[in-house]
Amino acid sequence: MSFKRFYISIVHPDNVTKINGYMNKIAWVDLYEKKIEYQELDEEDALKFIGGRGLGGRILLKNGVGKDPLSPENPLIIMTGPLTGTDTPMSNRIVSVTRSPLTGFFADSHCGGYAGPALKLAGFDGIVLTGASEKPVHLVARNGEITIEDARGLWGKTTFDAYQSIKRKYGAAAVFYGIGPAGENLARLANIMHFSRFAPGGRASGRCGTGAVMGSKKVKGLVFLADIKKKPAPANRNGFAKALATALKKIRENAVTSPGKGGLSVYGTGVLVNVINELSGYPTRNAKETRFENAYYTSGENLRGTILRKTPTCYQCPVSCKRESEVKDGKFKHRSEGPEYESIWALGAMIGVGHIEAISYLNYLANLYGIDTIELGNTLAVAAEASERGLLKEKIAWGDVDKYAELVRKLAYREGEVGNLLAEGGAAAAEKLGAPELSMSVKGLSIPAYDPRVFKGMGLTYATSNRGACHLRAYAISSEVLGVPYKTDPLSYDGKVDLVISLERLFAFVDSLTVCKFGTFALTREDYAALYSTFTGVEITEDDIDKIGERIWTQERYFNQLHGFSRKDDRLPKRFFEERSASGEIYDREAFERMLDEYYQKHKYNSEGTVPEETLRELGIL
Amino acid sequence: MSFKRFYISIVHPDNVTKINGYMNKIAWVDLYEKKIEYQELDEEDALKFIGGRGLGGRILLKNGVGKDPLSPENPLIIMTGPLTGTDTPMSNRIVSVTRSPLTGFFADSHCGGYAGPALKLAGFDGIVLTGASEKPVHLVARNGEITIEDARGLWGKTTFDAYQSIKRKYGAAAVFYGIGPAGENLARLANIMHFSRFAPGGRASGRCGTGAVMGSKKVKGLVFLADIKKKPAPANRNGFAKALATALKKIRENAVTSPGKGGLSVYGTGVLVNVINELSGYPTRNAKETRFENAYYTSGENLRGTILRKTPTCYQCPVSCKRESEVKDGKFKHRSEGPEYESIWALGAMIGVGHIEAISYLNYLANLYGIDTIELGNTLAVAAEASERGLLKEKIAWGDVDKYAELVRKLAYREGEVGNLLAEGGAAAAEKLGAPELSMSVKGLSIPAYDPRVFKGMGLTYATSNRGACHLRAYAISSEVLGVPYKTDPLSYDGKVDLVISLERLFAFVDSLTVCKFGTFALTREDYAALYSTFTGVEITEDDIDKIGERIWTQERYFNQLHGFSRKDDRLPKRFFEERSASGEIYDREAFERMLDEYYQKHKYNSEGTVPEETLRELGIL
Repeated sequence: MSFKRFYISIVHPDNVTKINGYMNKIAWVDLYEKKIEYQELDEEDALKFIGGRGLGGRILLKNGVGKDPLSPENPLIIMTGPLTGTDTPMSNRIVSVTRSPLTGFFADSHCGGYAGPALKLAGFDGIVLTGASEKPVHLVARNGEITIEDARGLWGKTTFDAYQSIKRKYGAAAVFYGIGPAGENLARLANIMHFSRFAPGGRASGRCGTGAVMGSKKVKGLVFLADIKKKPAPANRNGFAKALATALKKIRENAVTSPGKGGLSVYGTGVLVNVINELSGYPTRNAKETRFENAYYTSGENLRGTILRKTPTCYQCPVSCKRESEVKDGKFKHRSEGPEYESIWALGAMIGVGHIEAISYLNYLANLYGIDTIELGNTLAVAAEASERGLLKEKIAWGDVDKYAELVRKLAYREGEVGNLLAEGGAAAAEKLGAPELSMSVKGLSIPAYDPRVFKGMGLTYATSNRGACHLRAYAISSEVLGVPYKTDPLSYDGKVDLVISLERLFAFVDSLTVCKFGTFALTREDYAALYSTFTGVEITEDDIDKIGERIWTQERYFNQLHGFSRKDDRLPKRFFEERSASGEIYDREAFERMLDEYYQKHKYNSEGTVPEETLRELGIL
Repeated sequence: MSFKRFYISIVHPDNVTKINGYMNKIAWVDLYEKKIEYQELDEEDALKFIGGRGLGGRILLKNGVGKDPLSPENPLIIMTGPLTGTDTPMSNRIVSVTRSPLTGFFADSHCGGYAGPALKLAGFDGIVLTGASEKPVHLVARNGEITIEDARGLWGKTTFDAYQSIKRKYGAAAVFYGIGPAGENLARLANIMHFSRFAPGGRASGRCGTGAVMGSKKVKGLVFLADIKKKPAPANRNGFAKALATALKKIRENAVTSPGKGGLSVYGTGVLVNVINELSGYPTRNAKETRFENAYYTSGENLRGTILRKTPTCYQCPVSCKRESEVKDGKFKHRSEGPEYESIWALGAMIGVGHIEAISYLNYLANLYGIDTIELGNTLAVAAEASERGLLKEKIAWGDVDKYAELVRKLAYREGEVGNLLAEGGAAAAEKLGAPELSMSVKGLSIPAYDPRVFKGMGLTYATSNRGACHLRAYAISSEVLGVPYKTDPLSYDGKVDLVISLERLFAFVDSLTVCKFGTFALTREDYAALYSTFTGVEITEDDIDKIGERIWTQERYFNQLHGFSRKDDRLPKRFFEERSASGEIYDREAFERMLDEYYQKHKYNSEGTVPEETLRELGIL
């Protein structure tokens, strides 16, 4: 077990801020002027929006409304939270908040690993990138200071190669958070990749195209050099130790998360492949089907049986759901992180690829070029179905891995007509091909690996999510399949509004702490309140979590609303309403609209899905 | 490199027989009477038929004509040759000769590994099993003596489990050569498996159903306990050392065999998958097609990339073409030898399975139960096509691995109607289903992995082979694809008779030495003549090799002829004459008959394909 080595507490009493857990420092980097300003934390905002996604969203709302996503004016806000890098289990997340070049709406892009803790222990709660550099640069954060460095020799490199250069320059302890060719070339589905010595295969801050925003600023990436002595101390040491012990016990005893025993730990996220496929809820070949004949071969079980190399874990995580895979020879030769469940699906069933070694190879290419795998798979699926329908010159057969690999490269470098088309993402590509119905997306963000026809709650999540079709806004599967926090019938619409709202709030809070959502399989609001309260010294209750979650959630919705968002954007792709699943299911339009009404009402939004001023004031957003 | 460890010469001068290389001892085991008789070698036969397949065939012709294959009267002759277990490269083969219960004709079933050398160094040139035991027994050969032992606790066991018991009883050095449930249950496609500490995953003496003959005698297997001090010495030590050096140099420098460099060494026999598939000569779904869309995934390259565990080698072999594969988890969890090229194909393309981990699992089941993989794949293919045509109640879809796994078990245990049907082999099963044309077989033995429509020489080999459709009688691919000993056009009929006859002779000689045929990619008649002459002290020339080869070949044909064999049996399945390959090729009937005429003429057989007495006398067979 690699469990213990992450629980070494080195805390120095002089690292205690007013509210414990924060470094009390945000760096504002003006890339035009190459000037850096260090600001103290806004304490009121910190109390109201916690950190990470919430506080990042606050900064965005105050500074980023109405900016073109790929213009210098759009800020890229890279955040940690009060529990990041502490002894809290799974307190390893980093998040980039910005206006999405893919959707035009609110964007937050998270990843685990070591980047969050490293940024914090370099002395920062967050870094806000504004403006744009003329020449490619990279930033280095260490000891409470940021420097802007030339990126000659880095620009143009793949993420893997860039990290090798960074390591050579800054040493093995350097943590890299940056982009590949896709981000440089402003592919709207580019992500930000993260590498460290503990995660040499990479981790991905995916979704929403934040990598293109970094690329538009001519920033190749950020290097974090952590100082363990900077690790913040809990306000209530005994109380925190107790909260920690309770949380760890729950994680150890939970059937999903139990280290070395739970499904997530043994088989990784890919453990879901067979489960979701058996329920006929596994979108296949652009969701024309919902059961994949080769699902088993791509499952976590078979991955573990064949190409799994090791299972490194993220900072302070006993679960080790992460995979590193290797194909040792042949045309799929590679070594990379993952593939994770969503990538297995997006680069597998969704495009008809039924071999785990090929999926892992495509996943590796996505990591190499810095592309969001979910959006990539969906975009390739649009291309394949368009080709099938004769809408695209390019001949793209389902499952043709060689062709897909070629397209991934073209997309990353915006090579030729097809490269440029795909670099816009699934929704825009389908639109340009004159067949918007081919894109399985909501608000310009493509769906993940759960078919709404079979998981009605998930459908509501996709439709109402404020960053587009996303499973991480309110993971209804947790209830509909795993029975956490309580079991609901996936096929039923009843109670799904309450379920989704409840999860939205919890997840908004957890994303702001910042800790990994997988903790929620084992931990409850009570646990999170105890961990937060004892560490920060700010007492909160379970109810407060819901209030804060609602505030963070609605702030994002409000940001979207300022960019034209309303009920008309809370949609699902037509296919889910009109074509039946393998099990004969369909999403009912009337039920859908009824749910929307209920959803808006319970959120205190008006019937057109916009947030009234009264609600904004009540929540402390205005 | 594991090269050197096999080249440790320990030779004692008192182990020199009249003709060097022989132990001068054959054990005749009467399983009725539990009596063992030790006979000296017949020197004239040894000079004329060498050993292994040739000398075994001689013993069969003298003792086994007209016996029902599964009756006690049919002898099972297990042989080594003069070079077996010497320092000659690849001198590791063992062969079982008998009348085949699958075809009713001549049967010889070879394998590499350590069984041949172990039998010899236990003190024997060969063991002839006659009669049948009432109760299950196993035999132990050590120090020039055979004992017959009870097989309680072994009978009924899988091959893997039986070997574990043998090891516990006789120590880690014990070499096992025996059968699994398939042989016990008289499945006509049962093989004899071989295990040793150097080949824990197993080796298979495949083809012709020799495992069923062993089973019919109630013999679970033979245990060989070798004594390295028994290793025979060359007659001409310096001459042999020189011949050896030349041979090793050629093997090292050959593009196919070069250790660590050649295709065979790096990727194993599976290196052929992509080559043969690219030529559209890879029989797919019972040869309805000749190109497999998933071929790459099943190739030696991808095997090495994914599930390869290690590459153990056979006795005195620097090439290490052997694979041992492992799937570490999931429903295909196993560890086994192979899969080899033929097994990859038979349990892959031929039955529509396109995942190497699943193929390897089916291969493991075949090894576990002791079933010939080539015949197994063909038999399953017959079943699948019969099911497709509605001739079989059982629903068997192409590529349905779970179903195939179930059928393999049923076949091995002759479970139910379908188990009994399949246990008869592909040709008999097709016959019983009223559709003999579904069986891709010649003389009751099913084809290996080369489509005759695309490899015309191989087609002639299949048709004329005296043990049924076999690639190892005259490996025309060597010339038609690899250009050894000279390149011929695979699509041309010209010169193929000469090619096939030439290879038949060389292979008959090599099979009798007994050394592995893979040496022929690098070595010529000159090399074999030098190795044989210097070791045995009996000078032979390259021409002698052809003469001896022709004698051995014709002896087998004569044996068949005594069981009703003639031109009518030198056929190819109808499909190859009537349905086109993916590349548009077909076997031309007229060309085929013309080739047969030429073939008989050049062999000095009469036009009906039978051997005239004159030829038999001329060759010294009568």
